[in-house]
Amino acid sequence: MTASPIRVLVWNENFHETNGDEKALSHYPDGIHTVIADALRSQLGVDADVRTATLQEHEHGLTQEVVDDTDVLLWWGHARHDEVDDEVVDRVHEAVLAGMGILVLHSGHYSKIFKRLMGTTCSLKWRNDGERELVWTVAPRHPIALDVPHPIVIPEHEMYGEFYDIPVPEETIFLSTFAGGEVFRSGVTYTRGLGRVFYFSPGDQHFPVYHHPDIQRVLANGVRWAAPPAGRRALTADYHAPGWYEA
Amino acid sequence: MTASPIRVLVWNENFHETNGDEKALSHYPDGIHTVIADALRSQLGVDADVRTATLQEHEHGLTQEVVDDTDVLLWWGHARHDEVDDEVVDRVHEAVLAGMGILVLHSGHYSKIFKRLMGTTCSLKWRNDGERELVWTVAPRHPIALDVPHPIVIPEHEMYGEFYDIPVPEETIFLSTFAGGEVFRSGVTYTRGLGRVFYFSPGDQHFPVYHHPDIQRVLANGVRWAAPPAGRRALTADYHAPGWYEA
Amino acid sequence: MTASPIRVLVWNENFHETNGDEKALSHYPDGIHTVIADALRSQLGVDADVRTATLQEHEHGLTQEVVDDTDVLLWWGHARHDEVDDEVVDRVHEAVLAGMGILVLHSGHYSKIFKRLMGTTCSLKWRNDGERELVWTVAPRHPIALDVPHPIVIPEHEMYGEFYDIPVPEETIFLSTFAGGEVFRSGVTYTRGLGRVFYFSPGDQHFPVYHHPDIQRVLANGVRWAAPPAGRRALTADYHAPGWYEA
Amino acid sequence: MTASPIRVLVWNENFHETNGDEKALSHYPDGIHTVIADALRSQLGVDADVRTATLQEHEHGLTQEVVDDTDVLLWWGHARHDEVDDEVVDRVHEAVLAGMGILVLHSGHYSKIFKRLMGTTCSLKWRNDGERELVWTVAPRHPIALDVPHPIVIPEHEMYGEFYDIPVPEETIFLSTFAGGEVFRSGVTYTRGLGRVFYFSPGDQHFPVYHHPDIQRVLANGVRWAAPPAGRRALTADYHAPGWYEA
Repeated sequence: MTASPIRVLVWNENFHETNGDEKALSHYPDGIHTVIADALRSQLGVDADVRTATLQEHEHGLTQEVVDDTDVLLWWGHARHDEVDDEVVDRVHEAVLAGMGILVLHSGHYSKIFKRLMGTTCSLKWRNDGERELVWTVAPRHPIALDVPHPIVIPEHEMYGEFYDIPVPEETIFLSTFAGGEVFRSGVTYTRGLGRVFYFSPGDQHFPVYHHPDIQRVLANGVRWAAPPAGRRALTADYHAPGWYEA
Repeated sequence: MTASPIRVLVWNENFHETNGDEKALSHYPDGIHTVIADALRSQLGVDADVRTATLQEHEHGLTQEVVDDTDVLLWWGHARHDEVDDEVVDRVHEAVLAGMGILVLHSGHYSKIFKRLMGTTCSLKWRNDGERELVWTVAPRHPIALDVPHPIVIPEHEMYGEFYDIPVPEETIFLSTFAGGEVFRSGVTYTRGLGRVFYFSPGDQHFPVYHHPDIQRVLANGVRWAAPPAGRRALTADYHAPGWYEA
Repeated sequence: MTASPIRVLVWNENFHETNGDEKALSHYPDGIHTVIADALRSQLGVDADVRTATLQEHEHGLTQEVVDDTDVLLWWGHARHDEVDDEVVDRVHEAVLAGMGILVLHSGHYSKIFKRLMGTTCSLKWRNDGERELVWTVAPRHPIALDVPHPIVIPEHEMYGEFYDIPVPEETIFLSTFAGGEVFRSGVTYTRGLGRVFYFSPGDQHFPVYHHPDIQRVLANGVRWAAPPAGRRALTADYHAPGWYEA
Repeated sequence: MTASPIRVLVWNENFHETNGDEKALSHYPDGIHTVIADALRSQLGVDADVRTATLQEHEHGLTQEVVDDTDVLLWWGHARHDEVDDEVVDRVHEAVLAGMGILVLHSGHYSKIFKRLMGTTCSLKWRNDGERELVWTVAPRHPIALDVPHPIVIPEHEMYGEFYDIPVPEETIFLSTFAGGEVFRSGVTYTRGLGRVFYFSPGDQHFPVYHHPDIQRVLANGVRWAAPPAGRRALTADYHAPGWYEA
């Protein structure tokens, strides 16, 4: 509806890649964020303006100015959740409530920002045997499922299984099964304030999942879906006015 | 995402207008469908191609060919629900399940097609004293609420009140209050198969509600939201295939 | 909250068992309904009064009097859905809307009553290779999941897979995975009018699933959950009165 | 299902009552908690064991031992949310996730524990003109609505209006309208971990709302609904085990 590109920011903890994790580096030599950002640029073209930020930067690359200039934030973290500054988490939280979209990826389920948005432990069942994951669509009409095969086949991946301790999703789009028999609600959405939240589990540092074209398609669909329409609407201005007859 | 216009069809029972209902004719001399169609043309411009059909036409103007050429159907009926042919209802039902969007309006809550889609009585509390209705937004991030004032003020309208015997909505976007004190879930959505359903209650034949710019805005938003993405996706082709490993 | 037992009626199409299906008879020599009824008697004890009815009886054993005396109906059908009289379906539908609980089992997904309550095709993916099904709990706080292992292991069963064309469930309690890799929303709930609906997929005529103690536990939990509190509440009396100030 | 009484704890900030607020004292001379506790004792009889606790007590009366002995906690706070110790909030939060039910009342929408559970600002529209509130039931089958009139009439109350910045409720049971025309989702539920959450807005310190028999009935229904079945189930023990085949 608007001609201006979606301002996307891909955030990565960037720990494995900068600490000599050979397996991670074999798939993501310049960091997971770089692969995701390139994928989004390729998928979204002129519809998006994609940047990146990492934990190691000043204020983790998430200064107020950067956050104010972001329509959709993607969050990848795993081993250093605790190093994310609470003030930055507050800032991101406020931005989501004010309308910024957020895609929380894979092990980001344990990030401070996700637990803050959910209000639960976000714990899950886990096993890493590099087994086959199938990602099935259970909401075929949802825009995030657009042109996504049924199922997406990921030859090797880490297992995330139920029970996943999250609030009941507003929308459950994808369910994953694993060769070992487990199931996982792998693509779920929420609204928090004026912001849309999409959690999507496929994407481990030790597997080339973010090179998978179907996974890239889901992320691009997610960015479109989470982008605020025509600038962020201010809850305060429109919704907290005095009595209707005085408006 | 697609350049082709949304093919919209506004269906009207057109009974009051063709049977000398003076009050209805004072607001809708050429029929409710004409006012709605003009409003959608005005709101959606080149993004939509808007046609109309009425009960009195051959197959109620809903031949298989017409339905096949429709992306979003709007349904207004009140006094002659029973005269709608069951075969036409079957056809519309199948089209919704296959991806056609449908907006069911006001007294259409008692239409055959809506009761078929809902599986409930769709009964409600009712009073017609021409009282003030306020339409409040409770899902401000929803695209159907885009640029809609909070509340919409309708100076005079028929009262529809709870309990409204519908399934729990997937999304509740609008809640209406009436001067007499009642409340109504006046804007709710569902998915049925691949089709999106939006029920919106404001719009009686005896009040100029469809001339109200905010109501027109909601209908236009609803059409955009219900339109299938880039042609209808076929459930049979994509989702009912044999085992995933044979696909 | 009430001391009177839940009046349960187990309905079975009873076709396979009365038409020489050896495999079905090996598991259910006196009919699936008999095994389910005995299981409920065993699980619920004095809390329930369990009867059975079959397609072959007068009015399928579902006369108005019988339906009026039923708190929770369990529905098993497969090969003879079309032989169920529409008038009986109307009667059961009305009873559900008025507060009777209903548990729709396995291939009952294609029954007239379930399609009527859902408004969709209720189609699904299917394969019968007698493979392992795991039933995972994703709503551990739900009373239907009480004391149910995670997962329930069914050694051999028919595969039902997504996409399952039902409305978005109000509650998704169980997700099943199959050895072949598919997933299925195998335990889901809805409210229709004043009636509660629980669909539960495990339970094929060719496998001894209804002899499985965990499956029996789920059915018993479902009956408790679906039973109307202290007699059926009448929507008409309480909810369709004139304006609140006249009540 | 169990014979042991529900262990209920009514928590009150108890600020207005201990700081000379004449209007509050006229309705609640011994504190809001006392009136609520007596009401629950009266409504629930031997089914509940009701105690109280207040902000002023050691650890706000919410020591680990007390919390461990609580099945359902009711939370009333207004003017001193910030004085609730974060460590106590952590403790209550963990207890809810582990299965303790919680009823958050009225101005408790801004309490630390509720904002923690919701992940949003929980802000709302507000006006205090002592106007009529009507509480309508939109989920008549829900146990919290059992034997509750439609509507509950509260002659004078504070107005809480939409937009109420909470996550989309799992269940919306009550909608309130106010003489001034506003609407509010006044009775909503959530699950967080294994704990059930019920927010119910009627209940201001300056109005005798907690003396209202219908409001007392709702609270009693809420306690029954939120009480964990037969002791708290441990997520860790049942749901975070290793692979299913090792269980």
